[in-house]
Amino acid sequence: MSPKITTELLKQLRQVMKSPKYVQEPVQAYIVPSGDAHQSEYIAPCDCRRAFISGFDGSAGTAIVTDQHAAMWTDGRYFLQAAHQMDNNWTLMKMGLKDTPTQEDWLVSVLPEGSKVGVDPFIIPADQWKRMSKALRSAGHDLVPVKENLIDTIWTDCPQRPCKPLITLDLSYTGVSWKDKIAALRSKMAERKVLWFVVTALDEVAWLFNLRGSDVEYNPVFFAYAVIGMNTIRLFIDGDRMTDPAVREHLQLDSTLEPEFKIQVIPYGSILSELQAVGAGLSPKDKVWLSDKASYAVTEAIPKAYQYLTPYTPICIAKAVKNASETEGMRRAHIKDAVALCELFNWLEKEVPKGTVTEIIAADKAEEFRSQQKDFVELSFATISSTGPNGAIIHYKPVPETNRTLSVNEIYLLDSGAQYKDGTTDVTRTMHFGTPSAYEKECFTCVLKGHIAVSAAIFPNGTKGHLLDSFARSALWDCGLDYLHGTGHGVGSFLNVHEGPCGISYKTFADEPLEAGMIVSDEPGYYEDGSFGIRIENVVLVIPAETKYNFKNRGSLTFEPLTLVPIQTKMIDVNLLTQKERNWVDNYHQKCREVVGAELERQGRHETLQWLIRETEPLLRAQ
Amino acid sequence: MSPKITTELLKQLRQVMKSPKYVQEPVQAYIVPSGDAHQSEYIAPCDCRRAFISGFDGSAGTAIVTDQHAAMWTDGRYFLQAAHQMDNNWTLMKMGLKDTPTQEDWLVSVLPEGSKVGVDPFIIPADQWKRMSKALRSAGHDLVPVKENLIDTIWTDCPQRPCKPLITLDLSYTGVSWKDKIAALRSKMAERKVLWFVVTALDEVAWLFNLRGSDVEYNPVFFAYAVIGMNTIRLFIDGDRMTDPAVREHLQLDSTLEPEFKIQVIPYGSILSELQAVGAGLSPKDKVWLSDKASYAVTEAIPKAYQYLTPYTPICIAKAVKNASETEGMRRAHIKDAVALCELFNWLEKEVPKGTVTEIIAADKAEEFRSQQKDFVELSFATISSTGPNGAIIHYKPVPETNRTLSVNEIYLLDSGAQYKDGTTDVTRTMHFGTPSAYEKECFTCVLKGHIAVSAAIFPNGTKGHLLDSFARSALWDCGLDYLHGTGHGVGSFLNVHEGPCGISYKTFADEPLEAGMIVSDEPGYYEDGSFGIRIENVVLVIPAETKYNFKNRGSLTFEPLTLVPIQTKMIDVNLLTQKERNWVDNYHQKCREVVGAELERQGRHETLQWLIRETEPLLRAQ
Repeated sequence: MSPKITTELLKQLRQVMKSPKYVQEPVQAYIVPSGDAHQSEYIAPCDCRRAFISGFDGSAGTAIVTDQHAAMWTDGRYFLQAAHQMDNNWTLMKMGLKDTPTQEDWLVSVLPEGSKVGVDPFIIPADQWKRMSKALRSAGHDLVPVKENLIDTIWTDCPQRPCKPLITLDLSYTGVSWKDKIAALRSKMAERKVLWFVVTALDEVAWLFNLRGSDVEYNPVFFAYAVIGMNTIRLFIDGDRMTDPAVREHLQLDSTLEPEFKIQVIPYGSILSELQAVGAGLSPKDKVWLSDKASYAVTEAIPKAYQYLTPYTPICIAKAVKNASETEGMRRAHIKDAVALCELFNWLEKEVPKGTVTEIIAADKAEEFRSQQKDFVELSFATISSTGPNGAIIHYKPVPETNRTLSVNEIYLLDSGAQYKDGTTDVTRTMHFGTPSAYEKECFTCVLKGHIAVSAAIFPNGTKGHLLDSFARSALWDCGLDYLHGTGHGVGSFLNVHEGPCGISYKTFADEPLEAGMIVSDEPGYYEDGSFGIRIENVVLVIPAETKYNFKNRGSLTFEPLTLVPIQTKMIDVNLLTQKERNWVDNYHQKCREVVGAELERQGRHETLQWLIRETEPLLRAQ
Repeated sequence: MSPKITTELLKQLRQVMKSPKYVQEPVQAYIVPSGDAHQSEYIAPCDCRRAFISGFDGSAGTAIVTDQHAAMWTDGRYFLQAAHQMDNNWTLMKMGLKDTPTQEDWLVSVLPEGSKVGVDPFIIPADQWKRMSKALRSAGHDLVPVKENLIDTIWTDCPQRPCKPLITLDLSYTGVSWKDKIAALRSKMAERKVLWFVVTALDEVAWLFNLRGSDVEYNPVFFAYAVIGMNTIRLFIDGDRMTDPAVREHLQLDSTLEPEFKIQVIPYGSILSELQAVGAGLSPKDKVWLSDKASYAVTEAIPKAYQYLTPYTPICIAKAVKNASETEGMRRAHIKDAVALCELFNWLEKEVPKGTVTEIIAADKAEEFRSQQKDFVELSFATISSTGPNGAIIHYKPVPETNRTLSVNEIYLLDSGAQYKDGTTDVTRTMHFGTPSAYEKECFTCVLKGHIAVSAAIFPNGTKGHLLDSFARSALWDCGLDYLHGTGHGVGSFLNVHEGPCGISYKTFADEPLEAGMIVSDEPGYYEDGSFGIRIENVVLVIPAETKYNFKNRGSLTFEPLTLVPIQTKMIDVNLLTQKERNWVDNYHQKCREVVGAELERQGRHETLQWLIRETEPLLRAQ
């Protein structure tokens, strides 16, 4: 992986930063955030502006270019990748390390007095705008919105914004109709006394209308906004997608409907002018509800006095708690996904010793097996197929320049998942196809102990996920080991593989309390730079727990693994496990054997069924 | 404990809330916070305004009185106590429970349109003012400063503000001279480019000048402010305390000193006018450093453009990391404190069966034994001496109306501590003088497992204390038990028993990372309303840990108990402990026996030495 040469691009960007054609006054710095106008984590090619200007294409990062400097902020998952992908024009700012300045502090330290810092107001979330603007102002600088995106002005071969057909989801998948979802949203709006709700996150629009799309790779969403009033529904969406008869019928566009469920379809680009019209029609005390992560442009379209901003929208919270149809769908998706992975691992065991399987071949094979399963739509993120030292690059994606061949001498880490019409999967397994060293087994076993500590944790109702993060680290900490990423994220139901408002992380963020029906990942790891990476990840469902004293009827919760893929016992040093941990592994494997075994049998995959039975032997027999 | 009858007082308060003598315009609500002008947790009698108006005298709580309502916000430690102490005029707002409104939300829900909410600007911290003011303004109300404290206007027999003599501490106690502390502070000021630093917290003034006082019970502090410039030191303090020759010599008031160490002594009441003078002399870009918890009155004396506010001051952070002299002092203080408690427990074992020992007698006896120790000054907080159901009142303090007699049938919980000139102690032990039930032992053992999990935890350098909180709860959670308070707080060195900026709590607060030399408490508990309370508390020192892989040279930390008082083995169900936990208990008891035993021997307390030896038998022999 050679770095992108950015000297010429930066020169061009610095020119347009001074050009009266694009900026009212010259800007001394220009911020290029990761996101799109919806603050999506995964973005369409036309929105990959930060990757275009810097070369660094990880999922998180913010670039800032000044007249003299170019700097990139990213987190621990991407330190290695960013360092590899960027040339010497760029300074890597390692977020989470003590000595790394914040973007604001760094800007203040490098800018000449009274500078203007520009940013595209559609791309920066309102809460970040506010923080950044305040910090800059207090140091005598100004954050200014630059209407025309300056990267787009120098990006001559920028791809078109996608506009792909939609998928409609019926009640058997969603459990609740879009009309009932809108009614529930309106009752939340009435509780808070707000008149309008602006849906800006793409997955929230998709969830609300029980529609899916494929405008963005891996996330089954489509470019749209929605504005919900107490008696009106406005959907901002482009293209001929609304002429599709299935979509028209699903949204009842041609039916005689109660007026409050009649959907007005409006072009995507009209959002600002329509919001400004809404704002102009408001009376004192009227409120418009927006996520505080909505773009500055959308937020500012509503006069400040009318804004009602919350970190999580009621849609985000309702979407996180899966109903019975969604939970059953997630179970089905995970069983099919396990079949595909068992096929893959059985195949790898036979093929790796031949020396012909590369990381890319293994990833492609995983996709091939998944695509054979019912209701498969696409992958849920770029497969992390990594062996040996590549495994230590936490969000590695194999490309021809880095592609290693799997061997019996190195650890192989596969973090992958898929979108099925009934659910989203995300699973990591770490395998050795030869004989792991004692040190590799020790590290793997510490990670496994952390995985089990979270998965088997019992905690009172109302507990926030971040309080469970240290459970995942305790065994590693005892040995002086740690990992620089959170332990888990929310997972959507045939939606984004990363979703809020809950998670398990040492980072103090405003996570919502865990409740039964929420789905998160449990994925501790350990990474030895230059040698190997280990991660064990299941997707788990929050379920009620039974305890002896039940917290005086406050109730308690625990997790049930939805992922049912064997954990390689060859990598486990059983002596390091307590009896309780051994029982957890054996029970988990027993369940994999029963549930996935039955599906393998049904699908006639007999050889892989034998592999599964072998891989799910009780621990003391397996050793 | 019968509640205070507040009908007449509330009537009077509501009258002055409308009186043009005290308020420019009538206020529809008046806020009575807990604190004093320094946001102290422990306050002088003249500052106990919230207790005066409501009857509730716990250490934390905020009262709000409107024309129609009176409401009290407090946390889980005080739910029972507040409910007992307040009459029907008051509504208890249980903070931390899901359905409890915030003060702002409650005010908005009860106030008529366009209300004024009054508060004493000296009593409300600037950060709270800002939050409250913003929330009220966005709902059409106004937060207004009321210069005259309205409680004081109706408090006819309000005590005088204390003004007691000072104690000077020499280098053998403090390790660093006050001049060196001021020089270090100035170098932090230079780093941040601030010209002035305003010291508002009483313990920060005391620590900075190596002085102690006794204006506030339990906290060895005195009423004062300090304003430090790059070349000036101003100490705002009242009374003839500066005429004491020892103090004059300590502060070198009569010596020929470098001008930058010359202290100007100014009356306490002149702080606002002096700060306004400082503010008036500033040039653009000049900054004045204040804690964001300083009072609104003091903060607003400096024009906003010049304010530099941080959650923790450099004094707070320097004070938290104890130097070698302070650590050695803390060790000595804890050994003496252990001698006193061993004496007490030996005495209780003999006396309790006679049925003559009440909670108050036991607390007095504890103080008597402590006062026999060298350098004893006073208690560090009101002794919590509680038996049976009183133990479930987390911050209970025995008074004649509630005073129970200790018996062989009930659990006894003693949470107590002292101020010695060389250190501050805080220790909780839970004992049974008869035969505990299986359930009591189960609960005690779960609490002990949590105590050990924190005390023995190993974690990387830079870890924040809140990440350790769940370790203390895990064993309780497994049984469906929990406790409604944090696990630990910072402890001062012959200073406040509760101090920032670190702690161990599930509450997400801006705690600073733990570092070697910091001292915190480790005190999980379990409380069964109406039956008993259990808590096991040691004060522990953060020390470097040795681990196999040492976090790639990032280094690791763990805790060393400073408290050395036996944990009653009779209360332990050894079957519930792992081998590691049993070893921890045995090693801890071995250390108590060696270290405290030697001191008992030296002090000729032979009978108690025998008691100590009996109480520190290894677990399997003790059962």
